[in-house]
Amino acid sequence: MSKMLEEIRQQPEALERTLKTALRLAEKLKRRLEQKRPRMILLAARGTSDNAALFGRYLLEIATGIPVSLAAPSVFTLYGARLALDDVLVAAISQSGESTDINVVLERAREQGALSIGITNEAGSTMAKLAEYTFLVKAGREKSVAATKTYTGQLLCIYLLTYALGGGVDRETLARLPEWTESALSLEERIAERAERYRFMEQAVVVGRGLVYADAFEFALKLMETCYVVAERFSSADFLHGPIAMVERSFPAFLFTPPGVTWPAMREMLDKLEHLKADTMLITDESNREALDRGRGVIAIPAKLARKSGLPVEVYTPIPYIVPAQLFAARLAAEKGLDPDQPRTLTKVTRTL
Amino acid sequence: MSKMLEEIRQQPEALERTLKTALRLAEKLKRRLEQKRPRMILLAARGTSDNAALFGRYLLEIATGIPVSLAAPSVFTLYGARLALDDVLVAAISQSGESTDINVVLERAREQGALSIGITNEAGSTMAKLAEYTFLVKAGREKSVAATKTYTGQLLCIYLLTYALGGGVDRETLARLPEWTESALSLEERIAERAERYRFMEQAVVVGRGLVYADAFEFALKLMETCYVVAERFSSADFLHGPIAMVERSFPAFLFTPPGVTWPAMREMLDKLEHLKADTMLITDESNREALDRGRGVIAIPAKLARKSGLPVEVYTPIPYIVPAQLFAARLAAEKGLDPDQPRTLTKVTRTL
Repeated sequence: MSKMLEEIRQQPEALERTLKTALRLAEKLKRRLEQKRPRMILLAARGTSDNAALFGRYLLEIATGIPVSLAAPSVFTLYGARLALDDVLVAAISQSGESTDINVVLERAREQGALSIGITNEAGSTMAKLAEYTFLVKAGREKSVAATKTYTGQLLCIYLLTYALGGGVDRETLARLPEWTESALSLEERIAERAERYRFMEQAVVVGRGLVYADAFEFALKLMETCYVVAERFSSADFLHGPIAMVERSFPAFLFTPPGVTWPAMREMLDKLEHLKADTMLITDESNREALDRGRGVIAIPAKLARKSGLPVEVYTPIPYIVPAQLFAARLAAEKGLDPDQPRTLTKVTRTL
Repeated sequence: MSKMLEEIRQQPEALERTLKTALRLAEKLKRRLEQKRPRMILLAARGTSDNAALFGRYLLEIATGIPVSLAAPSVFTLYGARLALDDVLVAAISQSGESTDINVVLERAREQGALSIGITNEAGSTMAKLAEYTFLVKAGREKSVAATKTYTGQLLCIYLLTYALGGGVDRETLARLPEWTESALSLEERIAERAERYRFMEQAVVVGRGLVYADAFEFALKLMETCYVVAERFSSADFLHGPIAMVERSFPAFLFTPPGVTWPAMREMLDKLEHLKADTMLITDESNREALDRGRGVIAIPAKLARKSGLPVEVYTPIPYIVPAQLFAARLAAEKGLDPDQPRTLTKVTRTL
């Protein structure tokens, strides 16, 4: 069995552990942020961590109303720009805490007056030393080059950062995420069977919108890294603004379709893809009853969560929803005779400037 | 001849006309912005216009030091979030001025206290009515579904917005952009010859970094829309954080390689791709002498611009650099027997929420 698959299965415990530690920090940070609210949030990350940041971009704006920007690291590292970052909160995300460019952004932002937060696996890392506050992802060492448990751990820390900013995230619901993640893991055999028919897939598109848009990026990245599939990723709206032209009969499309406000747009997209005779697979949960009727390609996670706060119903879906995608990539890699733990050309820690 | 090709060739005049009108507005806006500088800039767009926004994201931060965010329209349209946007400048970009969701962002931002700017082709559009100030792209009607002359027109307006914000953009150099664009057009026959060998290309990756990163997105979009090529697009740094694993012998890669601070990273990327035996094509200009030596696949625009201000040397490259890419897509579509003016599934104005 691949390390990737092992690490996918470790996620419920990793989430439990992370929640326990990170909650204390969130409470402490909350007290500080109550005194002074940032006027803007800057998120800095690369690779899988950048996909986690993309989730943060949506959740933080929706839940707190504070505008969010995803940092372009080269603005700092190559162009040496000095941004006006007083009263800005900067959150840097890196599994290893050793991404050179992300640490430069963190350091510069701190110099420019920003409040600095790190989200990393490594308590002893450069990032943890640079940041004023560090959320630790307690996932244990991630041995596979393909990140899985650190992604969901990072998402959890972003919920807690949102909580610290007064964003109405429900602590009880967060405490139930490990259980929902466990229930998503129960789909492994069904997904493995499904993965078989994608043995010869060479290209694909992954579509998601809003809060699960980040999962679409992460699923596509896993397909590129571990299965060498040329996988595009779009929001349903961006997809309609041009790229849908490349979809022809049998083109494989993967859609994240939670219930809630994004479903009508995703349903419309699905209708369009079916009309084009594309080959579709849906990742959803049993509470989206309309999605359940959309054919053999529906992967539905048992519904475990009820709406708990004023936040949209799909707020808590991104962690459980990525699990079927991770399982699919790991099992498809095996099916294709590839080693997902050691993708060609890649190493675990990537240093770029 | 396709309308797309006609419209590509109209760019020098379109730029002349746009500059003339937009400069007056830029001077007026400059006087207003001198009184009060925004604390943040929010850019909102879809499709090709969103690629123009991506350029703005880099230029505005590098040249003005004001942090920039690319809006996620669904935060406003689907989730109904109210963002704290006082002292924010929002710039919405749309060829038709009728993108429903982008207009919602503009309207909401204005309600929340933002200074609103529109960048559009259509003086009578909803966008032009909603925005406090409107930069008009004087490109004439764009008949091809594949946007070309509106993209470069939008880039020009973004230079002028940066100028209005005191960003050190050199007006004289802007006035020479139509001439440099003309010189890029002179490469058409060389590019057409080159395009022939890509007749059977089905997938590709386009890499750019920093100020030409937007051109990488735009080139990939053109390849998807007009040639139905599954084209990925990355910054060289993001590409190394995972997706490079999908590159195998003969994988087609297109690189934008201007001189300046991004060249060392792009050179390293090129070395890596050559080591993997990928098939590479470079878009550069004659002032990047090191790039000229990189084999048959180098498309070099005659060097016309000298460094004029404190801004990085590659600041003025994105408009001329996209021209060879547009020509390549138009000629490759013809080579493949496709009609770039009417891509399957698409219409000129896309309305999404």
